[in-house]
Amino acid sequence: MPDSRFFKVAGPFTVADLARIAGAVPAEGTDPERLIHDVAPLSAAGPEHLSFLDNRKYVDAFAVSRAGACFVHPDFAARAPSGTAVLVTRTPYKAYALAAQAFYPVPPPSAGIHPSAVVDASAEIGEGCEIGAGAVIGAGASLGPGCRVEPNAVIGENVRIGAGTRIGACASLSHCLIGERVLVYPGVRIGQDGFGFAMDAAGHVRVPQLGRVIVEDDVEIGANTTIDRGAGPDTVIGRGSMIDNLVQIGHNVTLGAGCVVVAQAGISGSSRLGHHAVLAAQAGIAGHLTVGPGARIAAQSGVMKDVAAGEEVCGSPAVPIRQFFRQVATLSRVSRADRGARDKEE
Amino acid sequence: MPDSRFFKVAGPFTVADLARIAGAVPAEGTDPERLIHDVAPLSAAGPEHLSFLDNRKYVDAFAVSRAGACFVHPDFAARAPSGTAVLVTRTPYKAYALAAQAFYPVPPPSAGIHPSAVVDASAEIGEGCEIGAGAVIGAGASLGPGCRVEPNAVIGENVRIGAGTRIGACASLSHCLIGERVLVYPGVRIGQDGFGFAMDAAGHVRVPQLGRVIVEDDVEIGANTTIDRGAGPDTVIGRGSMIDNLVQIGHNVTLGAGCVVVAQAGISGSSRLGHHAVLAAQAGIAGHLTVGPGARIAAQSGVMKDVAAGEEVCGSPAVPIRQFFRQVATLSRVSRADRGARDKEE
Amino acid sequence: MPDSRFFKVAGPFTVADLARIAGAVPAEGTDPERLIHDVAPLSAAGPEHLSFLDNRKYVDAFAVSRAGACFVHPDFAARAPSGTAVLVTRTPYKAYALAAQAFYPVPPPSAGIHPSAVVDASAEIGEGCEIGAGAVIGAGASLGPGCRVEPNAVIGENVRIGAGTRIGACASLSHCLIGERVLVYPGVRIGQDGFGFAMDAAGHVRVPQLGRVIVEDDVEIGANTTIDRGAGPDTVIGRGSMIDNLVQIGHNVTLGAGCVVVAQAGISGSSRLGHHAVLAAQAGIAGHLTVGPGARIAAQSGVMKDVAAGEEVCGSPAVPIRQFFRQVATLSRVSRADRGARDKEE
Repeated sequence: MPDSRFFKVAGPFTVADLARIAGAVPAEGTDPERLIHDVAPLSAAGPEHLSFLDNRKYVDAFAVSRAGACFVHPDFAARAPSGTAVLVTRTPYKAYALAAQAFYPVPPPSAGIHPSAVVDASAEIGEGCEIGAGAVIGAGASLGPGCRVEPNAVIGENVRIGAGTRIGACASLSHCLIGERVLVYPGVRIGQDGFGFAMDAAGHVRVPQLGRVIVEDDVEIGANTTIDRGAGPDTVIGRGSMIDNLVQIGHNVTLGAGCVVVAQAGISGSSRLGHHAVLAAQAGIAGHLTVGPGARIAAQSGVMKDVAAGEEVCGSPAVPIRQFFRQVATLSRVSRADRGARDKEE
Repeated sequence: MPDSRFFKVAGPFTVADLARIAGAVPAEGTDPERLIHDVAPLSAAGPEHLSFLDNRKYVDAFAVSRAGACFVHPDFAARAPSGTAVLVTRTPYKAYALAAQAFYPVPPPSAGIHPSAVVDASAEIGEGCEIGAGAVIGAGASLGPGCRVEPNAVIGENVRIGAGTRIGACASLSHCLIGERVLVYPGVRIGQDGFGFAMDAAGHVRVPQLGRVIVEDDVEIGANTTIDRGAGPDTVIGRGSMIDNLVQIGHNVTLGAGCVVVAQAGISGSSRLGHHAVLAAQAGIAGHLTVGPGARIAAQSGVMKDVAAGEEVCGSPAVPIRQFFRQVATLSRVSRADRGARDKEE
Repeated sequence: MPDSRFFKVAGPFTVADLARIAGAVPAEGTDPERLIHDVAPLSAAGPEHLSFLDNRKYVDAFAVSRAGACFVHPDFAARAPSGTAVLVTRTPYKAYALAAQAFYPVPPPSAGIHPSAVVDASAEIGEGCEIGAGAVIGAGASLGPGCRVEPNAVIGENVRIGAGTRIGACASLSHCLIGERVLVYPGVRIGQDGFGFAMDAAGHVRVPQLGRVIVEDDVEIGANTTIDRGAGPDTVIGRGSMIDNLVQIGHNVTLGAGCVVVAQAGISGSSRLGHHAVLAAQAGIAGHLTVGPGARIAAQSGVMKDVAAGEEVCGSPAVPIRQFFRQVATLSRVSRADRGARDKEE
């Protein structure tokens, strides 16, 4: 179903292949040799498609689905329609993700340097790298094998990039060390000066920003996101963190492993997120704070003090999420009563 | 008055021309042959200028204006100064817009491909297209006639762009179909992967994003805005929608015709805006929601549930706008009383 | 300590040099000839390092520091450890900034035009300018001496740029006049059309944007920030203003001298900030408002009416900051009581 102009499907895969790829278990009686040609959502899937059931809401749709195969949680496996090969897993969405990666593998780089790219003679370009048209690689930069630098991206002097990393079109990097298998989307800015200056009525005085940006392996950085380099310490993005579009990450910020930062969120200078913390869309964290591992910051929240591990906060200023919704309810109730009282007075 | 280094004025136009261009009616006694040479705001306009009165606040300024001609609502036409040719219309700002477009037409593309541009041999470039310095057009891409691609923009493989569309400097497009007369401003990112992955403590697993971005005709997309492609369905921007700068539009989002999305607003994945919905600056819409036609979301609002057609909401979480301002008033009143009570206790 | 791949240290400097550079006064008994080789934070500084004490919180750390020299406020000078050359100043952070600039001067441009840059024959490039790979300079553009244009940046037709200004990678400028010593970070967009149109159910009608962007001297504009040109009047950024990343500045906005606009803040069309106003992160200002000199807008605030000179506001809609925190306290108190009351009823 995906547009073949943009996506090339691999496969077909047998049900046994898919079970193995996704770490799922075929239900009893499933034909392991059945061939599956593509992925599709439950509602649209036909006998040649693989789908998944991840949400209790869709169990009824699942029960009448025509999907050829489906990843499903053990609790719902019994609801499967008779024509569907059931692949049982406790993590159906993850299983689908792995299978979909098999059907739609990221195309490998087309090794070579486009003649219009400008690669400094002192730069080291690993084997199998693809350097796109108009890309610029500065002196002393180093790319591991199998990297892809898209057109018109700019890699600054002495930047180091690990194997298998991709740098999107028109992105620019400086003063940074990037890990392996990192995905940097188009328009990302990494390593520019942090926002540091001594305020002064006679003219603010810039403070040299002397740190770097360290991006660990398997990180993803969304389009037009900005990550400033440290002022002295480094700015660090922990392994496997997922950062969405238009996010701002200030100088000296450190993210632990597996953090999730959703679009248009911002993290002020020197704040630290523990591993697997989640910062939802348009939320902000003030400077010099610590957000504990696994903490969750709701969308549009404004965090003005530390957040404990595992805590969930909401609001601006952010408070524990139950307190936030209680306050919302209270204000609504009091406002209705207040209005009633004033109506009587009038 | 506009700086002639940046803007070339057309004209002059007669009052009759301007009335026709703008769909306005000259007031009785107006000289249809009077020549007007430029546009100007009411306060600065002289006898050679066209202006407009759009706001009751400026009626007094209008009454003493020296403007040579002025678009004005019938209600205020009688207040016109004697030297001004009055052009009556119920939509003076729209009339001004049309007339100003006549005085300052967008310069047509300078047909030709700059020698430093990199256009794949398999790309189709329509007649009269201007491809700027350093622009990159990928394999299989197709541009209709009269397009302009500004310097260092990147058009990905197989992207299709309709006639008369303009792509700003340093913008990048992939996995998308763009309509006619679309304005894509500098630094826009269209078609990159949506933010889709299965969360997993051992490492989040990316979900291939297999949809496209469809941008219908006459859409405008502001600088550094990001529009992700769909995860399976497409992301769709309806005809004539106006999107400002630094807006985030997530995967699978659909906008109806004529929507307005103001700067730094964000729309989370799979949400739908009906036609002519307005999302003001820095507002956010959570995922999988429906905002009805003509709904208005105030600035900085956080929409957490569906919004009905024509409804106006405000706040985070968003509530009907009258309720929002009542709550603001209540909290202010209660807080003052609360403070008074505590002052007495102390 | 900074990574020598990215930063070249100058010096060493004597304590007397540093006192002079920073406008500080050596405490009695200080050896003016002592050599200092680098800067470091208090906690990490050794005898070869210069540091600073700017925050009462760190006085104890200062008292046991091994720093070779330290800028310190007169109030704390007596707490200095015996091995440290004390440099007394009422503005230790500013003193540090000046000294750090001496240790880490911005490298001068490498004069020359990269062969892959595209510079129109009619453009004027001042002496000593560095034009990076893939940069594009349009017809009639003019750069003062000592400018640096980084790779793949795009300077539009007739743009004027003053001496010593730097334009970051992949930035794009049009319809603007830029002062001297301005720092434009990567991905910045200056001078594109403002968001101006007459709303119309049959199709919004664009209003030609006929003003410019004027950026005065010594301004800094952060990565991926967008500044639209005026609709008729100009958009003006006052001398020495500091603008962070991902900021939106609408058409006709004017900033006075020395304003500070933190990341992801936005200023709607035609609003005016007086000199030294501060707009914190993710705050927004509605259109056509005036924010007085020295006013401070807290993070995430939404300003819906004028703000007086020196006033500090917070919240959305923004209110005076004491009132904001009083309201937060009241709501918290009332909500707890409300909950208690309902618990008893149940």
